[in-house]
Amino acid sequence: MSTYFQEDQKEASRRGRLETDHGVIQTPCFIPIATKGAVKTMSSGDMKKLGAQILLSNTYHLLLRPGLESMRELGGLHRFMNWDGPILTDSGGYQVFSLSKMNKTTEEGVTFQSHIDGARVHLTPELSMQMQTAIGSDIVLQFDDVAAGDSSRERYKEAMERSLRWAKRCKDSFQRGDVSTLSPGRRTVAVVPSDTIKTSPLLFGIVQGGVHEDLRERSVNGLMEIGFDGYAIGGLSVGEPREDMFRITKQTCALLPADCPRYFMGGGMPEEIVENVKSGVDMFDCVLPTRNARHGTLFVWNQDPSTIDFFQPKADPPLAENNSLSPTWYKQLRITNEASQFDESPIDPFCDCETCLTTSRAYLRHLFSVQEILALRLATIHNLRFYLQLMEELRMRLNK
Amino acid sequence: MSTYFQEDQKEASRRGRLETDHGVIQTPCFIPIATKGAVKTMSSGDMKKLGAQILLSNTYHLLLRPGLESMRELGGLHRFMNWDGPILTDSGGYQVFSLSKMNKTTEEGVTFQSHIDGARVHLTPELSMQMQTAIGSDIVLQFDDVAAGDSSRERYKEAMERSLRWAKRCKDSFQRGDVSTLSPGRRTVAVVPSDTIKTSPLLFGIVQGGVHEDLRERSVNGLMEIGFDGYAIGGLSVGEPREDMFRITKQTCALLPADCPRYFMGGGMPEEIVENVKSGVDMFDCVLPTRNARHGTLFVWNQDPSTIDFFQPKADPPLAENNSLSPTWYKQLRITNEASQFDESPIDPFCDCETCLTTSRAYLRHLFSVQEILALRLATIHNLRFYLQLMEELRMRLNK
Repeated sequence: MSTYFQEDQKEASRRGRLETDHGVIQTPCFIPIATKGAVKTMSSGDMKKLGAQILLSNTYHLLLRPGLESMRELGGLHRFMNWDGPILTDSGGYQVFSLSKMNKTTEEGVTFQSHIDGARVHLTPELSMQMQTAIGSDIVLQFDDVAAGDSSRERYKEAMERSLRWAKRCKDSFQRGDVSTLSPGRRTVAVVPSDTIKTSPLLFGIVQGGVHEDLRERSVNGLMEIGFDGYAIGGLSVGEPREDMFRITKQTCALLPADCPRYFMGGGMPEEIVENVKSGVDMFDCVLPTRNARHGTLFVWNQDPSTIDFFQPKADPPLAENNSLSPTWYKQLRITNEASQFDESPIDPFCDCETCLTTSRAYLRHLFSVQEILALRLATIHNLRFYLQLMEELRMRLNK
Repeated sequence: MSTYFQEDQKEASRRGRLETDHGVIQTPCFIPIATKGAVKTMSSGDMKKLGAQILLSNTYHLLLRPGLESMRELGGLHRFMNWDGPILTDSGGYQVFSLSKMNKTTEEGVTFQSHIDGARVHLTPELSMQMQTAIGSDIVLQFDDVAAGDSSRERYKEAMERSLRWAKRCKDSFQRGDVSTLSPGRRTVAVVPSDTIKTSPLLFGIVQGGVHEDLRERSVNGLMEIGFDGYAIGGLSVGEPREDMFRITKQTCALLPADCPRYFMGGGMPEEIVENVKSGVDMFDCVLPTRNARHGTLFVWNQDPSTIDFFQPKADPPLAENNSLSPTWYKQLRITNEASQFDESPIDPFCDCETCLTTSRAYLRHLFSVQEILALRLATIHNLRFYLQLMEELRMRLNK
């Protein structure tokens, strides 16, 4: 691993680069979500064209289908989905908590029923490491115990402390090379560029502790004692007030080592990403651009993004508790509204994506109203491009 | 209009070219179906990349949504869907018959209930002409009375004769320029190449008469008396035995004028297309490649298509009544079958489509099994390319 993070005068924001087996990630970055091995409606080639640097895939979903042994047999996810860039995998902890029925947590791990066929599955820190290794993940996340967003302080504390103990088991399993049980692929993986520097996958710990600063501090210290290649901030963007999310992110970043990447899990709106970049976060993932796209809600620049001063101290108040408040530099367009019926302008005149170059608002509205699958794809292309362009703009501001 | 059809030594097959306002169509050709103004899962740019020369859209569907006035306001379908190639539209007759509830046919036209909201719509030959003109269709089909596949001879006769009377009304309406009520677009249509020769749209009559040769002959004679730019063969591929379909197509083609394009409506399997090309058909459309794709059934060459002798007199018997019988030069692959679980080969080693160049059978099977939308798109790309490549191969065989 080689990392480089340059702190900026702009609050605590950083411009960095992170080397992986499958190439360098320029940060701050946004990670599109390929839950089951594909970004919904998009091929790996499409994602490359859009400018995605790295994809996220979900251990929980891939563990159910195609499964651990199949993933090994298939030679890993890069080969399977023909993606030669870096892949980050979450550990499965969050999906077990949010998707499965009748999950039961013990010190050993979590037993849950598959949301697909009800089959009983036992997921442990060690199995999560093995599955992420079978996937061939470049950035492996520790398995964690996830507390619900409205938990008591006691439950947050319990989940954070168990997550620390599981973090240690993950690190041990990772170092022991439980992971090396990966059976060789049936032929060499052709998609990996031959000149890529070979390093190990990176292992990230996950900071937990809800909105309690003392629990977050304990979590950071515990993880740093174990030692990880990077640190994820978990358990936020789960319904807590925005100001708590911003406060905890800022506090946590200030505690984390400066030379390691920081990854905010699962958030958020564009203005939230900007605010968390200012606090020193390097990596983001979020379902919003793709999910909103499929529901016909599109992100649209209100001005040429190269003219936006994201780091202006007096920017629109991003701390408003009302999550519907948006800053002035973008808006959300409900494409199914009547206003677009005869609108021949592109979704976003400042966007360079395939959708904006070829499709009118009127046509996209029609495709949604007659329920054409193409509507979902064209909207997804645009919203992902909006998020990726946002990160490009932020990186340009942070370049020396 | 300028047409050129060169008869070949290979039975009655022809190699031709057909000029339209939006470019030349090389025949024999296959016309992908953009029912509601989009080929399912595919953008207009995707269709151009695949090598589609012309698209078919459905008057019935576009009449319901976005509607006649909206289509006029939007400046026609080429502009709306950003497709600069030719567009053929069917007349709505078949969809009224097959999709709507409570349709009632009188000499005036058909009254039907929208399959979407139950609204009562009255469709006449004249309205069909107006709608196809609002669409800006390059190849307009007459409105016809469609008899069910298992009708009595009397019903076939009635439908054929009414279709002839409606053919006259369509021609009259078309010549009167009922069609010229098209309101001007709100700005000039930028997608039309400036060097395209401007001609009128072409009007095709539809030969009806079921599987009865005398009715078909009466239909052809009646249509030729009225005079059309091209002739469609309707009412076949609706469940009749294959040998009847081939017999009637061959008989009808022999009666039609040699210098006009012939269009077989709605069929069929690859070997059926080959057989009907031998009878002298120039144009085909069919839902099979796209619909089968979405159900996970893929067309796969059994040998390099450039080596197939499609016109070999002793080819596999295409006249088998059992529709499941396939010739030896292709097969249908059920991608969801277990056989593909670890199969890293492309769908079709002889295909040059994006899917075959980037996707393994194992990955496409996974995408179907986890119900990713991308599966439908990747399968559609391949099946359309298979049909388009089949037509390219046939044209090459017929080139002098």
